Amino acid sequence: MSMDITFLGTGSAYPSPHRGASALVLRTDGDCWLFDCGEGTQTQLMKSQLRAGRITKVFISHLHGDHLFGLPGLLCTVSLNTNADPQQNQACVDIYGPVGLRKFLRVTLGLTGSQLLFPYAVHELEPTLDQSPEEGQLSMEMIADDGPLHPQEQPGRTICLDVSTDSYLLFENKKVVAKAFRLFHRIPSFGFCIQEHDRPGRLKTELLKELGLKPGPLYGRLKAGESIILESGRLVHPSEVLEETIPGRKVCVFGDCSSVLGDGPLRLCSGADVLVHEATLGNEHREKAVDHGHSTPEMAAAVARACCARKLVLYHFSQRYKPSSSQKDGDDDNVLELKRQAEDVLQDSSVEVILAEDFMNLPILLRR
Amino acid sequence: MSMDITFLGTGSAYPSPHRGASALVLRTDGDCWLFDCGEGTQTQLMKSQLRAGRITKVFISHLHGDHLFGLPGLLCTVSLNTNADPQQNQACVDIYGPVGLRKFLRVTLGLTGSQLLFPYAVHELEPTLDQSPEEGQLSMEMIADDGPLHPQEQPGRTICLDVSTDSYLLFENKKVVAKAFRLFHRIPSFGFCIQEHDRPGRLKTELLKELGLKPGPLYGRLKAGESIILESGRLVHPSEVLEETIPGRKVCVFGDCSSVLGDGPLRLCSGADVLVHEATLGNEHREKAVDHGHSTPEMAAAVARACCARKLVLYHFSQRYKPSSSQKDGDDDNVLELKRQAEDVLQDSSVEVILAEDFMNLPILLRR
Ligand SMILES: [Zn+2]
Ligand SMILES: [Zn+2]
Ligand SMILES: [Zn+2]
Ligand SMILES: [Zn+2]
Repeated sequence: MSMDITFLGTGSAYPSPHRGASALVLRTDGDCWLFDCGEGTQTQLMKSQLRAGRITKVFISHLHGDHLFGLPGLLCTVSLNTNADPQQNQACVDIYGPVGLRKFLRVTLGLTGSQLLFPYAVHELEPTLDQSPEEGQLSMEMIADDGPLHPQEQPGRTICLDVSTDSYLLFENKKVVAKAFRLFHRIPSFGFCIQEHDRPGRLKTELLKELGLKPGPLYGRLKAGESIILESGRLVHPSEVLEETIPGRKVCVFGDCSSVLGDGPLRLCSGADVLVHEATLGNEHREKAVDHGHSTPEMAAAVARACCARKLVLYHFSQRYKPSSSQKDGDDDNVLELKRQAEDVLQDSSVEVILAEDFMNLPILLRR
Repeated sequence: MSMDITFLGTGSAYPSPHRGASALVLRTDGDCWLFDCGEGTQTQLMKSQLRAGRITKVFISHLHGDHLFGLPGLLCTVSLNTNADPQQNQACVDIYGPVGLRKFLRVTLGLTGSQLLFPYAVHELEPTLDQSPEEGQLSMEMIADDGPLHPQEQPGRTICLDVSTDSYLLFENKKVVAKAFRLFHRIPSFGFCIQEHDRPGRLKTELLKELGLKPGPLYGRLKAGESIILESGRLVHPSEVLEETIPGRKVCVFGDCSSVLGDGPLRLCSGADVLVHEATLGNEHREKAVDHGHSTPEMAAAVARACCARKLVLYHFSQRYKPSSSQKDGDDDNVLELKRQAEDVLQDSSVEVILAEDFMNLPILLRR
């Protein structure tokens, strides 16, 4: 299974001509999963190699506008693309995000008379009270009165914290399990962990032939983990004839945060192949960053270190940090300095630090 | 008073890398009035010469996403700019648009925890039942339950059709009177007419000196329209000593429509200096255009002709029409053809046809 990430927006607060607002796409075998959707994401998508019609799942980390204001328009544009690709008409787009997201979409799509050519469902995560200061919590009044379902809306689930794992189970399919975890921010924020299942190693065909086993259904049963008794009466255990298990890849995308909540996040993200974390402001602005519920490169690096992540990708930069390609002599704030600040913390570790830029593509390879 | 229009988005349906979604700014003496606000308008604004912090009034023609989805984000960004300019903190941003707009902003700003550094008020226009097919009308259910005011929201007016003039009076100040008029579209849509007051001509200073009148308060009284009696007993009527009245300029911006409703629009827009009208599809697609509640160049030209407008500006082009600057040989749909189609209708008139492009600036000069 091929897997890669494309960053569509790496800026914070608002989209600028230099950096789009938060959005990235995780692509697995052509399926596109969108993480956050700031204003302008659909235009960024058009400029990228990705196709809007391929988006089948959306994950919204939190309800701040720079992560959300692009979603109604994106759904309308996905719909226009669906039109051209009738095979996709039936698939429901699943949308995951904090409580309030369902009403947001219902009202924005409803008042604008937006009809979609596919069904969608919003699965809401119930935050806990410690995920934000009190003023960041939505009042009952604000969430209430969300009216009848949108004509293309299917009922979604409300997902509560599984206390035993300190995480939220979003879904599991043959290939991956997707969970969310709690972050602390000005308003309730979540991170997402997409964990690919481990897969059995390749069959040692030479050995199987020596044992007198020819390619056929028995190969499949061994690969599926079954033991087999040969005509000779010999028991063949799968571990004898299979190469080492291929570990599934793990991709973790953090929403805005100044800290993680509970032990779920670090446990869940342990050994992540890619950990995407915000670094809104440089270390020298730590107080301001934390005041606004954000992280510095040092803070992001500490998380990656604690998780023993392979790669730490920094993004969600303050718009004061121009992309290094359009950096000019004399510009005060150099985004490369953010990378150095993270690397300082990770000197004696093997975590690789990467600065995300709009349209950057990051392949996620299998560990062999 | 200087007056000009800057087009920020001239595309229909969705923003593309070639054409932004609908938005234009009418600037009068530095004040910026925004007409429609599709997704990405704030980024287009940043790319233009205009300053977001200068936006003091917003006019939304109708609630389709390509005219509205950029508004919550734009208000947040205006707020960031207000921060830098404390003088503007107190001014209320007045927003005019169809019923439903108030709830749209209340819910989008509310659920996203968006705090603004200035107050705003939404003044809603009550459409009549004939402005759209029945399915385009908002249900009571959809408009209801709009919750308490946003913390920065001031109560707005609900403006009903003035039957005697077949128009909506939005506001009047020393310089202009602003009205709206009814259009027919898939959902209720409005056009806006900004009419500058006529101003007295310049004083004939040579003549005044001959009459023995020196510059002073009497000059002001004459200019204000008062008659004056000289020491000699001679009555001086303002018309004797003033040049011709300077007629106020009139700018009309039409929302999406396949026709106007009633006689208000043509009466109101009569003699417009600039009439901005949509031309979504070429004449050859008239049936499709009308089906979708849109106009062709021919239809737009007929309106401009009926109004005896001086300039007809076409915009809101289907994204199939690339800007002529990025038109390639072999591209089927040439936007210049839309101009020709409008000009055909206007051959024996003096209406000038202009194709709007993103970032085009159109000065509106006084008629001398
Ligand atoms: Zn953010
Ligand atoms: Zn945030
Ligand atoms: Zn439109
Ligand atoms: Zn429309």
